[in-house]
Amino acid sequence: MDFSAALDQALTNLHDEGRYRTFIDIERTKGHFPKAIWNKPDGTKQEITVWCGNDYLGMGQHPVVLEAMHEALDATGAGSGGTRNISGTTVYHKRLEAELADLHQKEDALLFTSAYIANDATLSTLPKLFPGLIIYSDNLNHASMIEGIRRNGGAKRVFRHNDPEHLRELMAADDPKAPKLVAFESVYSMDGDIGPIEALCDVADEFGALTYLDEVHAVGLYGPRGGGISERDQLTNRLDIINGTLGKAFGVQGGYIAASAKMCDAVRSYAPGFIFTTSLPPVVAAGAAASVAHLKNDQDLRDRHQAAAKVLKLRLKGLGLPIIDHGTHIVPVMVGNPVHTKVLSDKLLEDHGIYVQPINFPTVPRGTERLRFTPSPVHGPGEINALVHAMDELWSHCALNRAELAG
Amino acid sequence: MDFSAALDQALTNLHDEGRYRTFIDIERTKGHFPKAIWNKPDGTKQEITVWCGNDYLGMGQHPVVLEAMHEALDATGAGSGGTRNISGTTVYHKRLEAELADLHQKEDALLFTSAYIANDATLSTLPKLFPGLIIYSDNLNHASMIEGIRRNGGAKRVFRHNDPEHLRELMAADDPKAPKLVAFESVYSMDGDIGPIEALCDVADEFGALTYLDEVHAVGLYGPRGGGISERDQLTNRLDIINGTLGKAFGVQGGYIAASAKMCDAVRSYAPGFIFTTSLPPVVAAGAAASVAHLKNDQDLRDRHQAAAKVLKLRLKGLGLPIIDHGTHIVPVMVGNPVHTKVLSDKLLEDHGIYVQPINFPTVPRGTERLRFTPSPVHGPGEINALVHAMDELWSHCALNRAELAG
Repeated sequence: MDFSAALDQALTNLHDEGRYRTFIDIERTKGHFPKAIWNKPDGTKQEITVWCGNDYLGMGQHPVVLEAMHEALDATGAGSGGTRNISGTTVYHKRLEAELADLHQKEDALLFTSAYIANDATLSTLPKLFPGLIIYSDNLNHASMIEGIRRNGGAKRVFRHNDPEHLRELMAADDPKAPKLVAFESVYSMDGDIGPIEALCDVADEFGALTYLDEVHAVGLYGPRGGGISERDQLTNRLDIINGTLGKAFGVQGGYIAASAKMCDAVRSYAPGFIFTTSLPPVVAAGAAASVAHLKNDQDLRDRHQAAAKVLKLRLKGLGLPIIDHGTHIVPVMVGNPVHTKVLSDKLLEDHGIYVQPINFPTVPRGTERLRFTPSPVHGPGEINALVHAMDELWSHCALNRAELAG
Repeated sequence: MDFSAALDQALTNLHDEGRYRTFIDIERTKGHFPKAIWNKPDGTKQEITVWCGNDYLGMGQHPVVLEAMHEALDATGAGSGGTRNISGTTVYHKRLEAELADLHQKEDALLFTSAYIANDATLSTLPKLFPGLIIYSDNLNHASMIEGIRRNGGAKRVFRHNDPEHLRELMAADDPKAPKLVAFESVYSMDGDIGPIEALCDVADEFGALTYLDEVHAVGLYGPRGGGISERDQLTNRLDIINGTLGKAFGVQGGYIAASAKMCDAVRSYAPGFIFTTSLPPVVAAGAAASVAHLKNDQDLRDRHQAAAKVLKLRLKGLGLPIIDHGTHIVPVMVGNPVHTKVLSDKLLEDHGIYVQPINFPTVPRGTERLRFTPSPVHGPGEINALVHAMDELWSHCALNRAELAG
């Protein structure tokens, strides 16, 4: 095989489909987020406003987080220097796991280097612990869950998005004796809709199945202490395993599961993705723990986040733009074509200093390409105004339909 | 299924085999590594010496690393707030990738959240880029490579450890037209032996195969600029993809591949484990870049590292202890039984303040359980003395054989 030609072909396919991804090189300035500096390919710089980050609350620049990280750097240094088993468990990791167990009112929590690997490692390990396990997976589950479920070739069934009746049909068709697990999300990050957690748990209970909830786009943001939609809806005790991230609302990095002590102990003991990797740096664990602890008591920040999202959605709707509104903090504007989406994104950035990355396949299904805005408490009225005016102008300029593709 | 009972059973199996893992909770004090504080389960503390870390050079407490991290925290904040594609690419990531490409004299490099996921994501994506790819894998390859190779059910062949002849046999038996890749390591971390890189590349060339080298336990440590064994032996240009970590000798966190620009571009574009995860925090990237840059010019630290390993091996050999010595920095003392290994480790820690984690299955094959010491430039003569005397005493006390299990 001509490897070079095969790589060319793989890359050409992306260009041809208009979904070749160009990473925008940005530099945030602490204290000025969502403002940042765009380092352009030609070497010049331009001030921009970031409108597509997942640091939903601006915790990545919060003084309590940064102080905790400075302190940990001074006290203990940079990396952990080992896997969790071989010299890489520190007080910082233990404290963070205790914070997370408390957040979700579970007996224990287990840290991973990312929420991606937390999903992948946990979901691929459960079939080892429960031989014959069948995993029922929402068809819009995140790539990391899909990868974990597929990894070891275990049995899986895919139920229609947010459809407990379809889940019931699928479960009823399987051997009643087979161990079962239902895996789904709370806030789906690309549409911003919310899974029917209670109804899915009810169906799971009918069949004696475990429940696995990905709260990655909800932790820190929902619930009176930031425990996610499951906390807001008082459903925490219906979930056997909750997955979350430290890299979005908590503003740092890493992922975790929260579950019973013995579930965490077993995953800890059997998951290669947990065992065979250097643990998070203590400095990262320290920052994340400070963030989680802080957000247990900062409802005001959560309220301002929701208010910013409401204002943006109202104003974009007022212009007749095709937004999806499921009442959450995520504001997708549907475009439905990868090339148009890229053009809009490029014009917003170059002409208006507004940075929103085009979202295309494989992140969303083909034909549903979109711009996905993430307002935050640190996006002020001036920035919202600028965005709304820019979108209005561009929508007219590009002769795009209004409100046609909205979900 | 009674899930709780199944978890009990899985955990009981580990206890019965004597390989249930207890994480030791430690707290390094910056500037005093390898000294650290052990937080005991009973709530008391004890000073210990860490003898099993992979922060091989003590870069996790090096001023250039910590200064770079403090600066990045002050300049830009904590997390990146996004995937690489969606607002998570910063100047810190770009600079680090440039440092790494230069380190390995490749056109480009690609960062991952860990070297585990770098291996897993890259090796599982290559069969998508090269349909029909057969991967030839050394039978002692790291778990992350095995997981990546297995993930998508592609064709694989396992050749005997460090055996180019066996590799040739396997390759000759396959369709000459099938695309092929040979995957192996430079320093194998549990025995400390080195792969015959040149001979394996020669065989790969005979069959027109790509070559993939994991240098995780060699980067920073070998080669005149820390480019690993491939740099030391001037074989960099024979390797298509080099994998490395930022969490061991470089003292921080994260992993990467270095390869041609188009290889990196294709992996970047097609690997779910790269695409769908929050990028490394800028502060981590800043620390890692400082470490990589520093070690390009600090041969003295590498020399002192090798000297410490030589002294420790010489002295343990002098006592007739069964160590494996392949001329690298890793010092495994063979015990061959999980229960004995745990007892030795416990006694070293409790009675001597020497922390070395027992290494057991699945990290090493059953029957080859061991203590694995990692001397560093910051382990002084007093600490080496204390270790040697403790081992001598314990070996006699436990009536263990001397020099019997050595490889």
